[in-house]
Amino acid sequence: MSKSYEAFVTHRQRITDVQKATAVLGWDQETNLPKDAGQIRARQTATLAGIAYELSTDGKYIDLVRSLSEDKTLTHRQQRNVAQCMRTVERNLKMSKEMVERQSRLSSKAFDSWVIARRQDDFSVYAADLQELVSLKREQADRLGYEEHPYDALMDEFEPGAKTSQLKVLFENVRAQLVDFVKEIADVQQVEDAWLYKHYPQNKQWDFTIEILKKIGYNFDRGRQDISAHPFTVDFGPTDVRVTTRVNLDDVQEALWGTLHEGGHALYEQGLRVDDYGLPTGMAISLGIHESQSRLYENNLGRSLPFWKANYHELQKVFPENLGSVSLQDFYKSCNLVRPSLIRTNADELTYHFHILIRFVIEQALISGELEVNDIPEAWNSRYKEYLGIDVPTNAEGCLQDVHWAHGAFGYFPTYSLGSFYAAQFFRKAKMDLPNMVDEIEKGNNQPLLSWLRENIHDHGQLYGAEELCKKVTGEGLNFDYFMNYARDKYSTIYDLQGMKDLIA
Amino acid sequence: MSKSYEAFVTHRQRITDVQKATAVLGWDQETNLPKDAGQIRARQTATLAGIAYELSTDGKYIDLVRSLSEDKTLTHRQQRNVAQCMRTVERNLKMSKEMVERQSRLSSKAFDSWVIARRQDDFSVYAADLQELVSLKREQADRLGYEEHPYDALMDEFEPGAKTSQLKVLFENVRAQLVDFVKEIADVQQVEDAWLYKHYPQNKQWDFTIEILKKIGYNFDRGRQDISAHPFTVDFGPTDVRVTTRVNLDDVQEALWGTLHEGGHALYEQGLRVDDYGLPTGMAISLGIHESQSRLYENNLGRSLPFWKANYHELQKVFPENLGSVSLQDFYKSCNLVRPSLIRTNADELTYHFHILIRFVIEQALISGELEVNDIPEAWNSRYKEYLGIDVPTNAEGCLQDVHWAHGAFGYFPTYSLGSFYAAQFFRKAKMDLPNMVDEIEKGNNQPLLSWLRENIHDHGQLYGAEELCKKVTGEGLNFDYFMNYARDKYSTIYDLQGMKDLIA
Repeated sequence: MSKSYEAFVTHRQRITDVQKATAVLGWDQETNLPKDAGQIRARQTATLAGIAYELSTDGKYIDLVRSLSEDKTLTHRQQRNVAQCMRTVERNLKMSKEMVERQSRLSSKAFDSWVIARRQDDFSVYAADLQELVSLKREQADRLGYEEHPYDALMDEFEPGAKTSQLKVLFENVRAQLVDFVKEIADVQQVEDAWLYKHYPQNKQWDFTIEILKKIGYNFDRGRQDISAHPFTVDFGPTDVRVTTRVNLDDVQEALWGTLHEGGHALYEQGLRVDDYGLPTGMAISLGIHESQSRLYENNLGRSLPFWKANYHELQKVFPENLGSVSLQDFYKSCNLVRPSLIRTNADELTYHFHILIRFVIEQALISGELEVNDIPEAWNSRYKEYLGIDVPTNAEGCLQDVHWAHGAFGYFPTYSLGSFYAAQFFRKAKMDLPNMVDEIEKGNNQPLLSWLRENIHDHGQLYGAEELCKKVTGEGLNFDYFMNYARDKYSTIYDLQGMKDLIA
Repeated sequence: MSKSYEAFVTHRQRITDVQKATAVLGWDQETNLPKDAGQIRARQTATLAGIAYELSTDGKYIDLVRSLSEDKTLTHRQQRNVAQCMRTVERNLKMSKEMVERQSRLSSKAFDSWVIARRQDDFSVYAADLQELVSLKREQADRLGYEEHPYDALMDEFEPGAKTSQLKVLFENVRAQLVDFVKEIADVQQVEDAWLYKHYPQNKQWDFTIEILKKIGYNFDRGRQDISAHPFTVDFGPTDVRVTTRVNLDDVQEALWGTLHEGGHALYEQGLRVDDYGLPTGMAISLGIHESQSRLYENNLGRSLPFWKANYHELQKVFPENLGSVSLQDFYKSCNLVRPSLIRTNADELTYHFHILIRFVIEQALISGELEVNDIPEAWNSRYKEYLGIDVPTNAEGCLQDVHWAHGAFGYFPTYSLGSFYAAQFFRKAKMDLPNMVDEIEKGNNQPLLSWLRENIHDHGQLYGAEELCKKVTGEGLNFDYFMNYARDKYSTIYDLQGMKDLIA
C-alpha cells in the first residue's frame, strides 16, 4: 500500500471514529438519557459533529484525496474509495462548519421538543424548532446547489443521484397502479385480524423478537436490541450494530415487523467488511439499498407464508390464548391485511407508499418554500383524507408520528419506497438463483437467503453505486414492475381476486 | 466577562465535551458492549482521547491560559479556574499525544483481557497487557517528573499534592492502630451474619437499591443505575450522573453497599454547578474528597444504626423469609462484622484499609521497578497472608478482582483510604453543625445531611484544594484521629469491648 493511500486510510478512519462516537451518544440519547440531561448532551453531540466536520474538511486531507484521485497505480478498490471520499469532500466543502454544528444543536433541541409535542399532542411545542430546521435546510440546499429542484440537493445525501422530477414520475406511477389495486381489494371480503390486537404481554413479545433476530441470522456478539420510542438501527462499525424496537401491548405487529425491519438493516451493516472499517467499501451504498434489506426481511420474508410455516407454531406456543385457535392461513392473511391507516410504521406494504408519497409532497414543498411549518398539520391531514380516505384525529397520530424531521432528515423518506421496490427485485432474483431457498425458509433455515445477500449486496459496500449494484445483481436497473408483480401475485391470492389471478396466469 | 476569559471558557467546555463523550463510550463499554465490539470501540475511544489531548495542548489555548494567569482584573473565581487549568496544561505538556492515545488503546485491550482472565481465573491471559501498561506508566512518571518517588507523579493525577513518603507514614500509622484494634475484636464473641448470605432474588434487590438511591436524594432525572461487572459512577456533566451496581444472589451486601457507595459519589457530581460545566469550579476537587462522599454514604450513614432504624422495616418487608425474624440490632451488627476477607469491595470498613495498603505497596513497587507484573500474584498472596491472615485461593479472587489497573489507574487506590478518613472528619462536623441531623436520619429524612454536604463541599467544585477545603469545613487539615475515634466508638459498642468503652468515657 502506498504511503499516501495509507495516510488517507488513517485519516478517513479517524473521521469514522468521531462519527461513530457521535452515533454512540445518539443511541444513548434515545435509549438511556435521563430527563434533564438533554441540554448538555446536545452541546456534546454538537461539538463532536463539529470535530468530524473539521477532520472531513482538513486541508491536508483534501489535498491528499485530490492527489490520490489522479493516482493510476491504485487498485480498482482503492480508486473507488478515493472517488467516493472526493464526492463527500466536495459536498462538505460547500457546507460551513457553523452550519453543521447548528444542525446538530437544532436537531437535539427539536428532538426534545418533538418528544414533548408528541406526548402532549401539541404541534406548537415543536413548530418553532422545526421551522428553524427547515430554514437551515433551505439554506443548505442553496449552498449545495442543484439543477432542477432544491430538494434534489438534500436527497443527494441519502440517495446519491436521485431527482425530484424522477420521483414525481415514480410516485405518480405508484399511485396510478396501486390506487386501483387497493380499491379492488377494498371491494372484496376483508380478512380477519382481531387476534393481532389482543393483550400481548411485554416480556413474551420481547423474548420472541430476540428469537426472531436469531432466526434471521442477526449476530448478538456484534449487536444488541433495546427499547426506544421510534425503532432504529445504528452501527458503530460492523462489530457493533444495534437495533431498537417498541412493544405495543395491544398490537403484536409493532414489535414483530419493527424487529424484522431493523433486523434487515442490521444484517446489512453486520455484513460489511471489518477490514474496510472507515472506508467507503466498508459502508452501505445508499439508504434506498439499505431499506431494500429491511423491507426484504420485513415484507418479502417476514410477511410471507413460508416464513410463518416455519415459525407460527412457536408463536402459537408463546401466545396460546391469543393464537391457539387461529390457523396458519388466517394468521398469514391477517399479517397482510390491506387497510388504509394512520401510522406509517404500522402500515401494510401497499398503502405504505401513500404515507411516503404524502411526506415527499410536503417535504419538497417545505424546502422549495411553497409550504411553511405551521401549515404542515393541515397539509398532512387533508392529504391523508385524499389519498388514504381517513381522518387524522390528533397530530400525535399525524404529522408528529415520525422522528425524522426532528433529526433534520429531509429527503430521506423517499428512500423507504425505493427500498421496497429494490427489495422485490432482489428477492425475486434470489429465488431464481437459489431454487431451494423457499423450501429452506419453510424449514426454518434462513441462511441461504442471508448468504446470497451477503455475497451479492452486503460485501460490496460502496464498490458499486445503487443503480449499478442493482444492474450487477439483477441484470437491470430498478424496475417498478417487479414490485407490482409481487404485490399482485401475493394479494390476489390472499384476497382471492379472480381477475388478478387470470391476469397473472 | 472579558472576551479572553469567554474564549477560555468556550475552549475549556469543548475539551470537556470530548472528555464526556469519551466517558459515554466508556460507560457503554462496561454496561452494553456486544462481545465482539471491543477492538473497534478501543480505537474509537483512543481517537477521542487523542482529540481531547490535542484540544488541551492547543497552542492558542495555552497562550490564552498563560496570559489570563497574569490578568488581575478577573474575579477570584475566574482566577481559580485559570490557575487550575494552568496546572493541567503544564501536566499535559509533559505527556505526548502518542502516549495518551497509547494509554487509551492499551487500557481498552487490557480491560478485555482482564474480563477474560478474571472469568477463567488465568492471570497469564492479562499479564502481557498489564506489563505494557506498567511500562507506559513508568515512562509517564519519568516524563512528568517527581522529587522523591516516581509514584508521586502518578498520584498527582488523582490526589494533587499527595506524596508516597507521607502515605507510607500514614499507612504505618493506620496499621499500627488498626491491627491492635482488629485483633481485640477478633478475640471477643463474633456477631452473627448468616442471614446476609441467604438467597436474595435479583429483582427484589435491584428494586431496593433504586429505593435506597431515592432515599439518599439521588436525582433520577439526572442519572440512572445499571448493572456492570464492577460498580462505578460516571458523569457526563451534572445533569447526567450514572451509577452501576452488581447484584450477588447469595450476598445482599454487594448491591446494598455498592449502591450506597456509588450513590455518594453521584450526589457529589449531581451537586456541582451546571453553570460551571467544563470549568474547574464545576468539577470535583480530588479523588480523596470524592471518596469521602461515597464512604460517608456507604459507612458513616449507610452502616449506621440511625439509618437502619428508618429503613430496616422496609428491607424486612421485601425479604421476610431472610430477615423477618432478625432484629434491627442483630442486622445492624451483622452489617458491621469485622472479618478479614478476600474481596476489597466487600470488606468491612476497618480491614478495608489493609486491602488498600497491599495495593499501595504493590503499585509503588511496580512503578519504581522493584516488582514486575509476573510477580504480582505471589506478592499479592503473601501480603494477604501477612496482613489479613488469609490464603488467596484463586487469582480471580485475588489480584484480578479490581478493574483499576486495566484502566491504567495507578496511584488511585490510596485515595480510597484518604476518603474514609476525610469522611469521618466531615461526618463528625456535620453532626456538630446540625444537632438534629441524626434524629432526622432516624425518621428517614436524609435531606439535612445532603444539604450540608451540598453547601460545604459539593457546591465549591475546585474552588478550594482538598486540604484547604478540609480546613475550611472542619477547622483543621486531615486528621486520622477522627477516623480512629469513630471506629473505636462504633465498634466497641458493637463488639461490647469494655476496655474501649472505658477509654472513651
